[in-house]
Amino acid sequence: MSISIPQRKLRYAMVGGGRDAFIGAVHRHAIALDGQAEFVAGALSSTPDKARASGRDLLLADDRNHGDWRSLLADELKRAADQRIDFVAIVTPNHVHYPVAQAFVDAGFHVVCDKPLVHTIAQADALVAAVQRQRTIFGVTYNYTGYPMVRQARAMVRAGEIGEVRKVVVEYNQGWLASHLEGSGNKQADWRTDPARSGAAGAIGDIGSHAENLVATVTGLEIESLCADLTRFVPGRALDDDGSLLLRFQGGARGVLIASQINAGLENDLRLRVSGTLGTLEWRQEQPSQLVHLPHDGPKRIFTRGAPWLHPSAQRASRIPAGHPEGFIEAFANVYGGVMADIRAKLDGSQADPLVADYPHVEDGARGVRFIERTVASAASEAKWTSWAG
Amino acid sequence: MSISIPQRKLRYAMVGGGRDAFIGAVHRHAIALDGQAEFVAGALSSTPDKARASGRDLLLADDRNHGDWRSLLADELKRAADQRIDFVAIVTPNHVHYPVAQAFVDAGFHVVCDKPLVHTIAQADALVAAVQRQRTIFGVTYNYTGYPMVRQARAMVRAGEIGEVRKVVVEYNQGWLASHLEGSGNKQADWRTDPARSGAAGAIGDIGSHAENLVATVTGLEIESLCADLTRFVPGRALDDDGSLLLRFQGGARGVLIASQINAGLENDLRLRVSGTLGTLEWRQEQPSQLVHLPHDGPKRIFTRGAPWLHPSAQRASRIPAGHPEGFIEAFANVYGGVMADIRAKLDGSQADPLVADYPHVEDGARGVRFIERTVASAASEAKWTSWAG
Amino acid sequence: MSISIPQRKLRYAMVGGGRDAFIGAVHRHAIALDGQAEFVAGALSSTPDKARASGRDLLLADDRNHGDWRSLLADELKRAADQRIDFVAIVTPNHVHYPVAQAFVDAGFHVVCDKPLVHTIAQADALVAAVQRQRTIFGVTYNYTGYPMVRQARAMVRAGEIGEVRKVVVEYNQGWLASHLEGSGNKQADWRTDPARSGAAGAIGDIGSHAENLVATVTGLEIESLCADLTRFVPGRALDDDGSLLLRFQGGARGVLIASQINAGLENDLRLRVSGTLGTLEWRQEQPSQLVHLPHDGPKRIFTRGAPWLHPSAQRASRIPAGHPEGFIEAFANVYGGVMADIRAKLDGSQADPLVADYPHVEDGARGVRFIERTVASAASEAKWTSWAG
Amino acid sequence: MSISIPQRKLRYAMVGGGRDAFIGAVHRHAIALDGQAEFVAGALSSTPDKARASGRDLLLADDRNHGDWRSLLADELKRAADQRIDFVAIVTPNHVHYPVAQAFVDAGFHVVCDKPLVHTIAQADALVAAVQRQRTIFGVTYNYTGYPMVRQARAMVRAGEIGEVRKVVVEYNQGWLASHLEGSGNKQADWRTDPARSGAAGAIGDIGSHAENLVATVTGLEIESLCADLTRFVPGRALDDDGSLLLRFQGGARGVLIASQINAGLENDLRLRVSGTLGTLEWRQEQPSQLVHLPHDGPKRIFTRGAPWLHPSAQRASRIPAGHPEGFIEAFANVYGGVMADIRAKLDGSQADPLVADYPHVEDGARGVRFIERTVASAASEAKWTSWAG
Repeated sequence: MSISIPQRKLRYAMVGGGRDAFIGAVHRHAIALDGQAEFVAGALSSTPDKARASGRDLLLADDRNHGDWRSLLADELKRAADQRIDFVAIVTPNHVHYPVAQAFVDAGFHVVCDKPLVHTIAQADALVAAVQRQRTIFGVTYNYTGYPMVRQARAMVRAGEIGEVRKVVVEYNQGWLASHLEGSGNKQADWRTDPARSGAAGAIGDIGSHAENLVATVTGLEIESLCADLTRFVPGRALDDDGSLLLRFQGGARGVLIASQINAGLENDLRLRVSGTLGTLEWRQEQPSQLVHLPHDGPKRIFTRGAPWLHPSAQRASRIPAGHPEGFIEAFANVYGGVMADIRAKLDGSQADPLVADYPHVEDGARGVRFIERTVASAASEAKWTSWAG
Repeated sequence: MSISIPQRKLRYAMVGGGRDAFIGAVHRHAIALDGQAEFVAGALSSTPDKARASGRDLLLADDRNHGDWRSLLADELKRAADQRIDFVAIVTPNHVHYPVAQAFVDAGFHVVCDKPLVHTIAQADALVAAVQRQRTIFGVTYNYTGYPMVRQARAMVRAGEIGEVRKVVVEYNQGWLASHLEGSGNKQADWRTDPARSGAAGAIGDIGSHAENLVATVTGLEIESLCADLTRFVPGRALDDDGSLLLRFQGGARGVLIASQINAGLENDLRLRVSGTLGTLEWRQEQPSQLVHLPHDGPKRIFTRGAPWLHPSAQRASRIPAGHPEGFIEAFANVYGGVMADIRAKLDGSQADPLVADYPHVEDGARGVRFIERTVASAASEAKWTSWAG
Repeated sequence: MSISIPQRKLRYAMVGGGRDAFIGAVHRHAIALDGQAEFVAGALSSTPDKARASGRDLLLADDRNHGDWRSLLADELKRAADQRIDFVAIVTPNHVHYPVAQAFVDAGFHVVCDKPLVHTIAQADALVAAVQRQRTIFGVTYNYTGYPMVRQARAMVRAGEIGEVRKVVVEYNQGWLASHLEGSGNKQADWRTDPARSGAAGAIGDIGSHAENLVATVTGLEIESLCADLTRFVPGRALDDDGSLLLRFQGGARGVLIASQINAGLENDLRLRVSGTLGTLEWRQEQPSQLVHLPHDGPKRIFTRGAPWLHPSAQRASRIPAGHPEGFIEAFANVYGGVMADIRAKLDGSQADPLVADYPHVEDGARGVRFIERTVASAASEAKWTSWAG
Repeated sequence: MSISIPQRKLRYAMVGGGRDAFIGAVHRHAIALDGQAEFVAGALSSTPDKARASGRDLLLADDRNHGDWRSLLADELKRAADQRIDFVAIVTPNHVHYPVAQAFVDAGFHVVCDKPLVHTIAQADALVAAVQRQRTIFGVTYNYTGYPMVRQARAMVRAGEIGEVRKVVVEYNQGWLASHLEGSGNKQADWRTDPARSGAAGAIGDIGSHAENLVATVTGLEIESLCADLTRFVPGRALDDDGSLLLRFQGGARGVLIASQINAGLENDLRLRVSGTLGTLEWRQEQPSQLVHLPHDGPKRIFTRGAPWLHPSAQRASRIPAGHPEGFIEAFANVYGGVMADIRAKLDGSQADPLVADYPHVEDGARGVRFIERTVASAASEAKWTSWAG
């Protein structure tokens, strides 16, 4: 990724992501990678002692190492502009997203929030309204959109290279919840299977929402109605650990979305296939540098990251030459790079390069919340089709 | 495949499979491969002149080269036992399967019939009853069951090596009908998209039925209810060219079945994934010699055809050493080899080796007909779930 | 493969290939596949009793089931033209190739002989001279040349699609001789590691010769000099089980050839990579239906068997549609199909279609013998480069 | 990678790596990734103006942004301990490595230097002696050793899991120098094909040295003698762009090493295959998270990064869960992480965890220099074998 020359590093705070957390460290690696921002403040856990211990691990100054996110917010509001954070990253369990995001947006801060954005459509609508009112920057870490070959796929579909889209099959399969991990000391399993913290859905919320976002990002299609079957396979589990959906898109395309966390032996198998009148595209997250294009009238083609014949949006999302693998953190960093480009532009009063300022916005997060809510509604319904509009 | 020593070659006739046909030649290659049977009689087309011209191409003797299947049947009934065919292979378009199969079974002949077996559940039931009454051998060429690694998958699932099955995803995607081929001189496209000849379903009948059979073969699971969305994407097409189904199996497993002939650029992408409590199996027809096993507690394993550690049923389905690829015709030949083993045993009054006499029976064919009928019913229904029983 | 309509089936005899043999059965399957020839006579072992027992297994008539190849030859010469064989297939251990081939050619018979053709350059020269003198058809079963995608590679290289060839890397690695199998009842291991039967080389003769032939077939390059390192890894083994060579081709291209039978765990991993000024081609025998083309100026392309955009020589080498895997036997059958096309043309006084009559000739076999002899010479030499001419 | 909690960030300077450079940015990303060190000083180009402009791009303070490495060194020596750099990263073209590295080591600084280490064995010996005398930490960025699955391969080979090693095949193929890029404004091509800057070898020095290091790292084998063929394919090129070597290792193992930059269409195809008496391991840099193990007595196994059953040295080299791809930068960061662990231990007077302090040392760099020198000698020799000792 060709980075514009920074005048200074941006400053950021983190809410959540302390000891025992998984995704917080990924966010920090992703932000660190390009050397564009420094980590200056945090409220790294909902448990004040753990929050502060985590902050010390990460070399936060004591006066910016908070036991509570409200204290962080209050403190930042008091600081001079040249000390104040440029954005906050919210990496807590899902149920904390809404109050923190709403408070920081209301206070005028730029925000990066993990997905799924919030628990309810009502919360999502409130947050979208606040962002629009406050004109703040708000990124949602649907991180898979940061992969260069996802951007290449999007560019090819949007340019009509596979013709009119007819069929979309997206799967996100994992195996790590194939047994009853929750309650055994695995913090990730604990909160992700707890309705109070995870939300109305399990696998569908945690990874199905990524699948929905990937489809929307690449194809631009809008779901018209859906038909879901959600299952709790592991005895004693409180939320779905497996879901399969039939999708009908506006304009007539059809789809299948599968999200499952009980596919024992699988790791992180997110994959997308989009077929149009002129050909098919296939992408797999576990081999992210490849995009397979099957044209109807010639041999299969495999596009790889870093090639000069890629769409500029894919080229710009890459740091090193072809054949030198980039991965998950680099894709994540591209999402952050996009947010930071918008923040810098706002600071400068300039316009960010749209090839860099390319990231999921609060509206994408809100659409994901609707997806979860309508899927849960469909799963509870005897009717075949549940409308997207609700 | 270790072939038992034949006393003599078996004799067979073919109905259908003349000039312009596709699958008839495959059947003949498959039967020829092991040198166990000779092609002695036929009625190779529904057009008498074309039937006879096709028979001459294939060196049939004039007196056994018929213009019509009824003439073939009548002639065979008049022949002495040491000249009469041992079995008939029915490789016509679907609508001809039933009358021919019924007539030959009623006359006491052994039959191999292509799939889908017949057009209606009523026909299927009648045929099953006739076979049981006549005690004839009846094989259905769900040819994908002949692949050694499908047999290995079946053996592993049945032995509990992936634990209790929870989720099954089967897809059969092709691209050859992505445009309106019918009516342009492509005989295969013509009859397969014509309800009068193909039956009540298009893609679901032609290839979805293979997918259903593969799931049943490997897992032994029985469908309890299903929810189907069938689509005709190509303007002017009379039958579905795309279908997606949610499946619920007896005992609680869940599944997804996708069959589509409009995935432009895809060739013959039949693939199966079965996840159980202890691991996952994956198989793809386009790389048929590999079976991927993902255990929950160790590295991914790739079983390959020809290895001495395979289940005997997989070993016996193989002719040449590991690393020397076998393909579609060899798998097809295994189905025929199974039928012929049963025929030889019947001739000898012996018992066939069950590792060889391993092929889909008339009951499997009947189950496939039910699958098609219930899928079409579900697609027409507003109810979410359509029961298998009907 | 589009088969020209036969007037009658050809008749063939086999020398070697009885019980305990491996490759004889492959030859019979390959010949049977297309139903173009019938197996009518044989001398299936050097042990007369075993020869006759093997012939009975395979339903040979008693008067054509010989205990000795000389008896077979004498008998055939006495038969009327409408009974006599059209060709003989020689599938014995290597040391028997020469006397049998020479005798049958001298007697005017068409021959198919396994590789390596003979033991010495002198024998090879004599045989080439005899074939030219007798104007008989003589095919050598370098069977890998029968794969459609090898023919596609040849067509692309010859058409300049990868520019001028610079670098060739060919490997043929197996693992089955990683331990001391010989002397333990494995007939294949016994004769292949015995200099008296196998010839001057082990792995280099058995599989290195296939690698040499593949390079010559695809590229047309001629070796100018070579530098070989041959090793006997398994204690007590009498011949090399591993070899690596540097190659210099006329015109300046460079190459590496590796042949090894001690790569424990590998099956039949023959692979070729050819790089030219404009791109690279890669082919692997274990995935024979794919040819990978890496152009210097665009995305990787994967050609697959059966596609309409393949070169006609590749299309004609295929029996069934794309996505329906063909394998080793089908490729082998293409070599036989080529020989039989030439035999039929000779019978008819016509010209065979060169797209079908495409198979390795006696001269290719002779070149392979030279390859083995020069490689062994290089391995014994202190000089870096050993000339091809000798 | 489980990072020990730092008391403070380390400070580092960089020599080379300014505008137009490629690898400098990779080093900076790799160091930044884990947030363990900050970039505080530099002499980023041999052209003073470009050096300072590059430093300003990267936000270096003016007083630590030098036009010349001697100025950097002099300045650091004057600084107080709590400001002075903890290490210097040397990322210049090859010819500058030696004087800079020698000067910083002589001054007592810890060093990370790119490969190949220096131009001559004499320089290498002098540097090794200096490091041993000064007891400084010295890492060489043979970055491919930082991949978790390379460490897994090393652990498996060293533990005897493939038995005694017999055959090693390593290839490093690229295509970017297939045409005459040098002299056309491509700085990378310019210096890498210039003997004065690149050294005595082209492809062999630039990427062949990585291949040699990979073999040594994974197997521990020592080369006894080698036989090289080096070629300059592109007209006008001053150094080899292609090389192939036969290798003989102490103890009897054999090998082939191929390094080529004219394989048009290839990207960065470094691959290793090691066969032992009990099985084979295969690894490809372009799919770095997989290690293929082919045991002689069971199905192929694919180990993947992040699995709990990996060797601790592989587990520790990983930051995020299995299935979330890590790549080139992460591997590079592991090398830096190892160096930094040793530096921290030195600062603390403690012992670094050997699972973290795992990186190529100055002696590995020196062995690489010998490899290049002996390869060039062999290429110029008529003798088949050139001894490693010289």
